[in-house]
Amino acid sequence: MKKPEVTKTPATRPRKRRNAEPVSTPDVAQQGGLIRGRFERRRLPEVEAFTASLPFDRRLYRHDIRGSTAHARMLAGVGLISGGEAEQIVRGLRRIEAEIRSGRFSFVLSDEDIHLAIERRLAERIGPAGAKLHTARSRNDQVALDLRLFLREEVSDVLDAIDRLRATLIRLAERHLDTVMPGYTHLQRAQPVSLAHHILAYVEMLGRDRERFAQTLERTDVMPLGAGALAATTLPIDRRMVARELEFPRLAENSIDAVSDRDFVVDFLAASALTAIHLSRMCEEIILWSSTEFGFVGLPDEFSTGSSMMPQKKNPDLLELIRAKTGRIIGDLVAMLTVLKGLPLAYNSDLQEDKERVFDALDTLKPSLELIAALWPRLRFNRAAMKAAAGNGALATDLAEYLVRRGVPFRKAHEIVGALVRHLSVAGKTIEQLSVDDLQRYSKHFRADVRAMLSAEGSLKARAIQGGPAPATVRRRIAQLKRELAGASHRLAGRRSK
Amino acid sequence: MKKPEVTKTPATRPRKRRNAEPVSTPDVAQQGGLIRGRFERRRLPEVEAFTASLPFDRRLYRHDIRGSTAHARMLAGVGLISGGEAEQIVRGLRRIEAEIRSGRFSFVLSDEDIHLAIERRLAERIGPAGAKLHTARSRNDQVALDLRLFLREEVSDVLDAIDRLRATLIRLAERHLDTVMPGYTHLQRAQPVSLAHHILAYVEMLGRDRERFAQTLERTDVMPLGAGALAATTLPIDRRMVARELEFPRLAENSIDAVSDRDFVVDFLAASALTAIHLSRMCEEIILWSSTEFGFVGLPDEFSTGSSMMPQKKNPDLLELIRAKTGRIIGDLVAMLTVLKGLPLAYNSDLQEDKERVFDALDTLKPSLELIAALWPRLRFNRAAMKAAAGNGALATDLAEYLVRRGVPFRKAHEIVGALVRHLSVAGKTIEQLSVDDLQRYSKHFRADVRAMLSAEGSLKARAIQGGPAPATVRRRIAQLKRELAGASHRLAGRRSK
Amino acid sequence: MKKPEVTKTPATRPRKRRNAEPVSTPDVAQQGGLIRGRFERRRLPEVEAFTASLPFDRRLYRHDIRGSTAHARMLAGVGLISGGEAEQIVRGLRRIEAEIRSGRFSFVLSDEDIHLAIERRLAERIGPAGAKLHTARSRNDQVALDLRLFLREEVSDVLDAIDRLRATLIRLAERHLDTVMPGYTHLQRAQPVSLAHHILAYVEMLGRDRERFAQTLERTDVMPLGAGALAATTLPIDRRMVARELEFPRLAENSIDAVSDRDFVVDFLAASALTAIHLSRMCEEIILWSSTEFGFVGLPDEFSTGSSMMPQKKNPDLLELIRAKTGRIIGDLVAMLTVLKGLPLAYNSDLQEDKERVFDALDTLKPSLELIAALWPRLRFNRAAMKAAAGNGALATDLAEYLVRRGVPFRKAHEIVGALVRHLSVAGKTIEQLSVDDLQRYSKHFRADVRAMLSAEGSLKARAIQGGPAPATVRRRIAQLKRELAGASHRLAGRRSK
Amino acid sequence: MKKPEVTKTPATRPRKRRNAEPVSTPDVAQQGGLIRGRFERRRLPEVEAFTASLPFDRRLYRHDIRGSTAHARMLAGVGLISGGEAEQIVRGLRRIEAEIRSGRFSFVLSDEDIHLAIERRLAERIGPAGAKLHTARSRNDQVALDLRLFLREEVSDVLDAIDRLRATLIRLAERHLDTVMPGYTHLQRAQPVSLAHHILAYVEMLGRDRERFAQTLERTDVMPLGAGALAATTLPIDRRMVARELEFPRLAENSIDAVSDRDFVVDFLAASALTAIHLSRMCEEIILWSSTEFGFVGLPDEFSTGSSMMPQKKNPDLLELIRAKTGRIIGDLVAMLTVLKGLPLAYNSDLQEDKERVFDALDTLKPSLELIAALWPRLRFNRAAMKAAAGNGALATDLAEYLVRRGVPFRKAHEIVGALVRHLSVAGKTIEQLSVDDLQRYSKHFRADVRAMLSAEGSLKARAIQGGPAPATVRRRIAQLKRELAGASHRLAGRRSK
Repeated sequence: MKKPEVTKTPATRPRKRRNAEPVSTPDVAQQGGLIRGRFERRRLPEVEAFTASLPFDRRLYRHDIRGSTAHARMLAGVGLISGGEAEQIVRGLRRIEAEIRSGRFSFVLSDEDIHLAIERRLAERIGPAGAKLHTARSRNDQVALDLRLFLREEVSDVLDAIDRLRATLIRLAERHLDTVMPGYTHLQRAQPVSLAHHILAYVEMLGRDRERFAQTLERTDVMPLGAGALAATTLPIDRRMVARELEFPRLAENSIDAVSDRDFVVDFLAASALTAIHLSRMCEEIILWSSTEFGFVGLPDEFSTGSSMMPQKKNPDLLELIRAKTGRIIGDLVAMLTVLKGLPLAYNSDLQEDKERVFDALDTLKPSLELIAALWPRLRFNRAAMKAAAGNGALATDLAEYLVRRGVPFRKAHEIVGALVRHLSVAGKTIEQLSVDDLQRYSKHFRADVRAMLSAEGSLKARAIQGGPAPATVRRRIAQLKRELAGASHRLAGRRSK
Repeated sequence: MKKPEVTKTPATRPRKRRNAEPVSTPDVAQQGGLIRGRFERRRLPEVEAFTASLPFDRRLYRHDIRGSTAHARMLAGVGLISGGEAEQIVRGLRRIEAEIRSGRFSFVLSDEDIHLAIERRLAERIGPAGAKLHTARSRNDQVALDLRLFLREEVSDVLDAIDRLRATLIRLAERHLDTVMPGYTHLQRAQPVSLAHHILAYVEMLGRDRERFAQTLERTDVMPLGAGALAATTLPIDRRMVARELEFPRLAENSIDAVSDRDFVVDFLAASALTAIHLSRMCEEIILWSSTEFGFVGLPDEFSTGSSMMPQKKNPDLLELIRAKTGRIIGDLVAMLTVLKGLPLAYNSDLQEDKERVFDALDTLKPSLELIAALWPRLRFNRAAMKAAAGNGALATDLAEYLVRRGVPFRKAHEIVGALVRHLSVAGKTIEQLSVDDLQRYSKHFRADVRAMLSAEGSLKARAIQGGPAPATVRRRIAQLKRELAGASHRLAGRRSK
Repeated sequence: MKKPEVTKTPATRPRKRRNAEPVSTPDVAQQGGLIRGRFERRRLPEVEAFTASLPFDRRLYRHDIRGSTAHARMLAGVGLISGGEAEQIVRGLRRIEAEIRSGRFSFVLSDEDIHLAIERRLAERIGPAGAKLHTARSRNDQVALDLRLFLREEVSDVLDAIDRLRATLIRLAERHLDTVMPGYTHLQRAQPVSLAHHILAYVEMLGRDRERFAQTLERTDVMPLGAGALAATTLPIDRRMVARELEFPRLAENSIDAVSDRDFVVDFLAASALTAIHLSRMCEEIILWSSTEFGFVGLPDEFSTGSSMMPQKKNPDLLELIRAKTGRIIGDLVAMLTVLKGLPLAYNSDLQEDKERVFDALDTLKPSLELIAALWPRLRFNRAAMKAAAGNGALATDLAEYLVRRGVPFRKAHEIVGALVRHLSVAGKTIEQLSVDDLQRYSKHFRADVRAMLSAEGSLKARAIQGGPAPATVRRRIAQLKRELAGASHRLAGRRSK
Repeated sequence: MKKPEVTKTPATRPRKRRNAEPVSTPDVAQQGGLIRGRFERRRLPEVEAFTASLPFDRRLYRHDIRGSTAHARMLAGVGLISGGEAEQIVRGLRRIEAEIRSGRFSFVLSDEDIHLAIERRLAERIGPAGAKLHTARSRNDQVALDLRLFLREEVSDVLDAIDRLRATLIRLAERHLDTVMPGYTHLQRAQPVSLAHHILAYVEMLGRDRERFAQTLERTDVMPLGAGALAATTLPIDRRMVARELEFPRLAENSIDAVSDRDFVVDFLAASALTAIHLSRMCEEIILWSSTEFGFVGLPDEFSTGSSMMPQKKNPDLLELIRAKTGRIIGDLVAMLTVLKGLPLAYNSDLQEDKERVFDALDTLKPSLELIAALWPRLRFNRAAMKAAAGNGALATDLAEYLVRRGVPFRKAHEIVGALVRHLSVAGKTIEQLSVDDLQRYSKHFRADVRAMLSAEGSLKARAIQGGPAPATVRRRIAQLKRELAGASHRLAGRRSK
């Protein structure tokens, strides 16, 4: 969809359709829109500009038209309009969709929102039948419908993006089962892990993100139309028919709730915030790893930026931005929570603030997921540096556990190795440099077989319990995750084909 | 559990057990705790006081002991300790639990946290066997376990509290199927609804809250023990055995993720924030309704507060406070999100901030749910005032829909009734006062049968489509909700009995 | 400034200037921008699109050009470039400003940001002299300068908008010194106040907002240029000269801080959030007052919106939106705080998130202030309804204070009047209906002169202590505020003329 | 003050004072507190427990008593009570203060808050005179006064703590004028700076924090008493006399605003959040520096913590916690903003949520400032490692600026050095290793004098413009800062002695 500017005053007066019955469109336009109601004077242009949602909600035009199409068919189905009128409406809407898509539609601020813009244009194009479309409907249930249709589609895309990132990470992990690196706690080297194991920690996080979005999708997938302004309608409409047409598995069961509810928006923003946090943790780590000090990873030129002043710089801008944008999504969430707090039922215009928050979070999260997925396979890992960092102190726990296997109580073993580390540190030596004789000065329980523990690779292999970093264990987990991922894609595809 | 103060310096030196092998407890205590590691000097008391989590995490003592008991049995099961040692440990832990429960346990800040406090005391009581408890375990996986055990229990309580509130509201709705009141949009009277229908809007919201907490519970119900500090252990432990003993259906599948993950805390806080928002909307409405201006409801003395200066006042303090405390829970959520953003893997002490946020949100949400549930049945509704407010303009939409049934396009009908309302407003008349003759001046389509529409009750009855406010429709929904609620309680009870 | 779309690929290749020395512009363009540094491959287009700030920071083009102009003059002043070169640069920048203003400038995403876009264009227009502009400067200090210049200007506008709103409110208050209305606590009628006094409460709030923005302005008014990337420069520049030219009273005193500091942005967002909160309280009250239940105020058609379904509705959309947008500004603040938390020094790309937050808050706050100022004078107050609501119970405190003047201890007096109110409430009577005889049944201290207290007007007049609502007191406060406001405008005008 | 538990039911019934006139204290106690008003039934205990602020607001007892003392003296001054009564009250309050301080006061929840607890006890101790204390006062203005008195004192402490930290940092900077280290942008080594210069960046931040808190203090320093519930009083009190006694320079000028305003709380929380952010940036850096990878700094044992599992670990828990607690303070700020949003005037119980947020932020911020100040002087800097990291690429900008001085346009110079760095990187060489011959291969403008630039120390010395890192420049700034700091302390001391 091209984005023509919204003009503040109608660039072109709505053209009168010849032979069309007078539906008062023209003088309604003079009154400031389709809705005259009890009003005598039209809104001030500044008020119009401030309150109009058209500049952003026109992004929902496809969903609005899809909803209106289903609504019109239902109206004909129950006899509130004729089949011919429904046909006219549906054809008119299709043409308007084409107009908007191609950028030929002229948006005017006095239309307030995408709903009235389309209804106004429909009245211009098809005359009196257009004036029947809004039967048994309010913008309150209509906008709830549009936003649910939109979000249903977008959340499916987010699920795909998450799955693609997970698949990328799993593939990468498969190549790094034996790439040793230090695991960190408190940003201090702790124990050896593999890059595969480390990467899979993110796959687990993203798996939960997936689940959360899937649950959001289910709570979004509820059909509000028929709730009217807040109290349904006295007209004999058929809500199930609309739901079938729009592929909703459930109806909103309370008309007041149907127009007041933005929980699904909060669900979406909360899920987005947590996913963004996971990405921020990822970015933080790659930023650290790509510092000269860590030196674990080289960033590709295609993902980096130079400095305008310092010729030597190669900066991880992309990663910093993704990290920072977490704040933005948290801000979107806070904004929406603040809007909802203490709001009396049912619909209030405060809810109009929902869409920009959703758009902003989406437009931030989706490219973040995609760019991170594009980056990982192009990182150049420095295996030597990673391995070098995974030895020495990072092996201390293994020594203590060795003593435990020899019958030393763990607290005692911890103390013995603690003293050993203290002395090594003073002497400027590493654990790997210790002979069995050296070790026996600390505990007579050390034997020759302790040498096998004293390498990062050995240590890695020894941590083979479920959930641990040993290559064989990680390989099994990868196999599980691949099956799970295949299943997920399958289910999603099923959902799509509906 | 009684809450003895945490003393900054040990009130009583740990008593040496006679005949106990020297596990270095005494001089460890001089060093500032169980863990000496590579340290030569102990922490400053101010640092100890700032970093200690003991003042709040001792609330987890039951869960810590339950986890340690399962861990000890497993250690014996796989032969890392003897059966006798496991027995000693389990018995010792049981006695410590009794000590804490009865307030006889002396907490000292140098213990840092509840884990070390209990382990220190165990060493004092049972000697060397105690020094074996921490085998193949780190506080990193231990605290994750404790918090999951705690939250699993508490979220179950929250689910119960939500269900009790829903049951209360449903019972109340049953009594008010015919209690007419105005539905509002934009705080302007919109259309007649029933009190039952209005109340059920909250039942729908709470139903979603329930679902969200149930999903949080599932993501909490994962067993992290065995992850160790972040990289599992070289010792041959059996994680499934621990999970069985502690009734966890799943194991954490990645040791790094297991100690870094606080997503379940965010899930809990996000679910709490949204539930709090629903309560805030409820409170806002009751506050409005109990104003002299609305006059829909009288607050019982037992739930109100007087003024220290103004003798006539009866203030809805409780409702204002519940409304305000939404901010507090949102604040807890923001705090936790901020903590997690950009945090590198794996465990960092930043995560220690999780528990106070959880406790604060729980201690706010649970009584809020309970007090609101206690209040609703004692509200005295003024049916006459509510009905009076539901007429006149609130009937305008019905008039327009009447015209639609007579074949007038909706936009036209809307315009006709808009003009009518404008004139009534100028004339100071109400819709109910209009004769059919009066109406026909606006449209020849009005007939005598329009009179049946011109009452709030008539209007209510006519909105009988699914999700609408007609008494018969609402009665059906109530029946559904009762079945659903019974099923939910049943499932939860099943979970409990495990 | 017209807003041409940013094209993703250069629509037109930069034209080579004839006779211009080869500044490598063409092949630089192939490399993806002015800055080649150590790079061998250019960024991916998706990365470029995600990281570019040009789509929003081009709003700073005037400030960027102003800053560059001052910088060029200084470079000539200290001899780093020739006077002729400076002239060329300044003239070139002036033409570029005209190009952008008129919409003729073609923005391309590979320019990354407004700084490079302008520098690139300058090189195209004037050749080698353009390649000297960035001497002794980094984008890090340049963007800090631009944002400070921008915010300095905008905050001045906000100060003006606040002052205009305050002036409007003061004028309105002057007309309503005697308009009695109930003051509320806990949304319960408390004691009579005047509309003037109530309105002046907002003037006090806005006075603090003003002060806060003025302090923000001072902290913004600091010149960062010369900080370079973070470590100043080895070139002999003259920072004071630049500061004089740009009318900055102070220099940033630490180059690292100068490029890392966004405190002034937080100051601005925090001040905006609190001002927005004040507006939200105002809007909440007008929404309440314009409900049928309160009936204190009629909204003008020009500031209201109709319903698409309900013909009778006149909705306070504008007020609801302003109320809701508070959430948005709080969200902007939270976003910025989250971005800054834990960020190491000095410049990081995370800071790029600052501008959109500032723009969003500004574009929300400024029209809110203006529209609220436009609305207040057009509200139609229903004095009769307001006065009627200010009697009865709202007079109870005066009765208690009457008794105090007669020597009854306040707690006793409070109790006596409490009982009286309880009895009136049961009897369905009002305080005004009580005779002196009636009153004496509660306390023998009541005398005939108590009658003078028993009206809202009488009560109002009696509260004449400083800060109280008596008309004479409020009139004095208005006089003070007018003087203060005149002084403020004067100071601001002084600042402007600099 | 010792903290006795608040008992839910009065441990001891209030003792009747002999010879005291019957002030109905006993039966008031039966009614659930001092305030009976129009109530017939007392609050439910659960409601009492939820709404009572006594468990936390008793922290304000000294300020409440100080305010009541001033109020009583004023009441006597204007003749509303006798001099003897005032004496009794003041003496009674003094004794109650002693009771609370020594832990002998029994708090009961039915007192609701500290104000009524003290007033109740006063009535018990001194009889009818006590019943006169609340004359012309409401808890609404009283609690505003108490919180302002409290915060005024605490913010002064925060100012002191900030100044102590600044003084510490300045002293440390003096010792490290020549300690070279790399300055970073994007966490990539950028250019050499000194540790002194880096530390002073924080001093600048803290200087702004100081200013912000000082401005908060001014807005806090306003006397609200006399505002009553919201509408002042009909009694002839003297607000200026109270202000003088309590050393307030200004009176709240609008009674409605005086009881509704919590802007000073937001000011405090916003200032705290930004200060916390500055500390979090500091902590992040020290955490990075103390990693093995950076190796710039060694943490003292007294400020570190060990691992329960890994014997070799020394973890920067304190720094991580301070970093994390930023989230907590941001959460406090968000909570308060959310509470205030959309709140109608005047006092609402929502405001009761203010105190816990203030206490939490204070109790987090003050020890953070103190512990960070204690830590810095004990950090062991590894000068060799810092210097080694400050060479090579970090000197590239100097080379470019060298060429500028030789007449090469900066963009060209940037490109030349960029290519040079690229080649060095491939060749595995450093800039320091380049001979003049090597350099001349890149540009004929390099001369022998370029060698002087090719060291971190040389580079540092050359950046001597104002705000730059050259030792002489930094020394001048330190001198300025010391003068400023001495002035600040002096002013604060002046304020204190009042």
